[in-house]
Amino acid sequence: MRDWSAFEIGYDVPALPGMALSDVQTPALVVDLDALERNLDRMRTHAAAAGMRLRAHAKSHKSADIAALQIGRGGACGICCQKVSEAEAMVRAGIGDILVTNEVRDPVKLDRLARLAERARIVVCVDDPENVGPLSRAARRHGVTVEALVEIDCGAGRCGIRPGAPAVGLAQAIAAAEGLRFAGLQAYHGPAQHIADPAERAATIAAAADVTARTVSLLWDAGLACDIVGGAGTGSFPFEARSGVYNELQCGSYVFMDADYERIRAEDGGRVGGFENALFVLTSVMSRPRPDRAVCDAGLKALAVDSGLPRVFGREGVRYDGASDEHGVLAIDGGDVAIDERIRLVPGHCDPTCNLHDWFVALRGETVETLWPVTARGKVF
Amino acid sequence: MRDWSAFEIGYDVPALPGMALSDVQTPALVVDLDALERNLDRMRTHAAAAGMRLRAHAKSHKSADIAALQIGRGGACGICCQKVSEAEAMVRAGIGDILVTNEVRDPVKLDRLARLAERARIVVCVDDPENVGPLSRAARRHGVTVEALVEIDCGAGRCGIRPGAPAVGLAQAIAAAEGLRFAGLQAYHGPAQHIADPAERAATIAAAADVTARTVSLLWDAGLACDIVGGAGTGSFPFEARSGVYNELQCGSYVFMDADYERIRAEDGGRVGGFENALFVLTSVMSRPRPDRAVCDAGLKALAVDSGLPRVFGREGVRYDGASDEHGVLAIDGGDVAIDERIRLVPGHCDPTCNLHDWFVALRGETVETLWPVTARGKVF
Repeated sequence: MRDWSAFEIGYDVPALPGMALSDVQTPALVVDLDALERNLDRMRTHAAAAGMRLRAHAKSHKSADIAALQIGRGGACGICCQKVSEAEAMVRAGIGDILVTNEVRDPVKLDRLARLAERARIVVCVDDPENVGPLSRAARRHGVTVEALVEIDCGAGRCGIRPGAPAVGLAQAIAAAEGLRFAGLQAYHGPAQHIADPAERAATIAAAADVTARTVSLLWDAGLACDIVGGAGTGSFPFEARSGVYNELQCGSYVFMDADYERIRAEDGGRVGGFENALFVLTSVMSRPRPDRAVCDAGLKALAVDSGLPRVFGREGVRYDGASDEHGVLAIDGGDVAIDERIRLVPGHCDPTCNLHDWFVALRGETVETLWPVTARGKVF
Repeated sequence: MRDWSAFEIGYDVPALPGMALSDVQTPALVVDLDALERNLDRMRTHAAAAGMRLRAHAKSHKSADIAALQIGRGGACGICCQKVSEAEAMVRAGIGDILVTNEVRDPVKLDRLARLAERARIVVCVDDPENVGPLSRAARRHGVTVEALVEIDCGAGRCGIRPGAPAVGLAQAIAAAEGLRFAGLQAYHGPAQHIADPAERAATIAAAADVTARTVSLLWDAGLACDIVGGAGTGSFPFEARSGVYNELQCGSYVFMDADYERIRAEDGGRVGGFENALFVLTSVMSRPRPDRAVCDAGLKALAVDSGLPRVFGREGVRYDGASDEHGVLAIDGGDVAIDERIRLVPGHCDPTCNLHDWFVALRGETVETLWPVTARGKVF
């Protein structure tokens, strides 16, 4: 047993640098650094081969340390955030180029966003002409320029103005507004990321790219150039990359992968992008009531289950069979587990799983190399 | 627009005391204090009428402030926690009587648990004779007494030793171990809480109470009295209360209610216990792309969806139709919503929803009265 007694604050962190994996307090979010670095390198290679910028989505990990690695080793031009509070956390941590891939409508949030532009390049999405005046006034109040993308609904059915003429009208309003700069289009197709069949996914993105190209062309005719045509996620990026329309990829999950993305097949039948599992929830067995059942300490508060239950990693004959708030039931069928044994789980969905934890325990092999705070954890407002 | 500029730290909290509900930064966890107080009073009355102790489960809210209200106004004898780190947070905040309703097997966690007994009454569950020696050694190391309940599997199919003779053998081992005190039985039936039909729920708890009564009797024959026979949740407590076997109720969700518990019918066809909605996720509309669709700012990182999507509160013709990480899609069918309008959502499942947030915004009517930290948020290890 590792002695934590000289380290009171240890009770607020799940591990200490230098510790063996078997001494980590569970459940804990662990990152395989070697796998993470290989994923960073793969994505850099993919973006370079396509001649595109990578603007990595930080909503997946919410970590300023991983964002810095994406920009440094991973070659990203900047990051995406989804919320103003998430962007605030990243600007405070020194990230200098952020696209908020979302609409901001509340007057206080618009003010907060404009203040960030005093310290970083800030780009935001707009899908409604009524948003232009308030955004412009916030920028002018702080004497800054906020860049704006027109978000179009390219088939995803969530936010976004209609492509074509309505989008052009909105772009013109932005271009004419003091304190704002029209920077291009946001054309992200979320549901496409999770279409398992590559041909169906390709067709969905082809349709999205088509309406996007048409809008870019109409904007050009109206004298408005798109510096950024952004979209794409880990599931679909090869299709946006070859479209000839998009120039910035917004992939996020590629650094970690998750059980849901493992279902998504590339055109060659392998994993999209060749990415490997770098993120795990480490759990311990705490009860062994029957030969065919064990209970581990990672449930709904340690794992997001919206996209399915986690997969047990690297173990035969052991399956994660059900989650309650603080328990996971393991079905034992041909395998075995011992009391207090550590087991790695691949989360069903990495983004909301990371948001449950305060720390990433970063492993080199089986040893804790460092701890990274989940910088923007809970920053959803 | 409320001016937050003199209050930099305001960007880390979703509201300030005295603020109107319409100025709260969203998404935020809000509590209706009047409804919360009525729920506390209802549960106190129910427990008193049954002649039972209430040991409120703090895993639902993870708030030391609400735990203190449950013990004070709500008449609880103490609280339950589910994890050692959750108990640590509550002991640090001054709570003096805690049952950890779970097994603790990791040697470091056993040491942490024993240290808590230097500052509070600590009771823990045991379901395996192999756990007795390590727990006893941890208690002796710190010169404390840790109380232990034998957890029996009364039909829930999760943790727990078999009722009857195996449970008695375990109790005898605890009673004989230095540093430990045998305190009774833990006989909680989790799945029963969510059986909608009252007759089926009654039958399930009757079966659980039967094996529990048999085990209590065998223990008595062996010279071991049960100070605590604990179990029951918000869905089933009327049945445990009338069983004549249980003497401590462990209800948690009663303070808040959620959309899942609204499905659970009492025998008179009404809500179990008469509890009302006191917890909401406050969200704002940020996009209105089509007449039949709006998009709000509360998705998977603001709301747990494991037990279903949230219910829109107090609004006709508006339905929460789908959650992505940071967005909620509202189907508009007969109602209407405006950009930046605040809407209350009743979470599908209150426990993991509270664990997503850092603050409870406590409302008196439509005004913020105070903010409470989610004391043990993320304390799952």
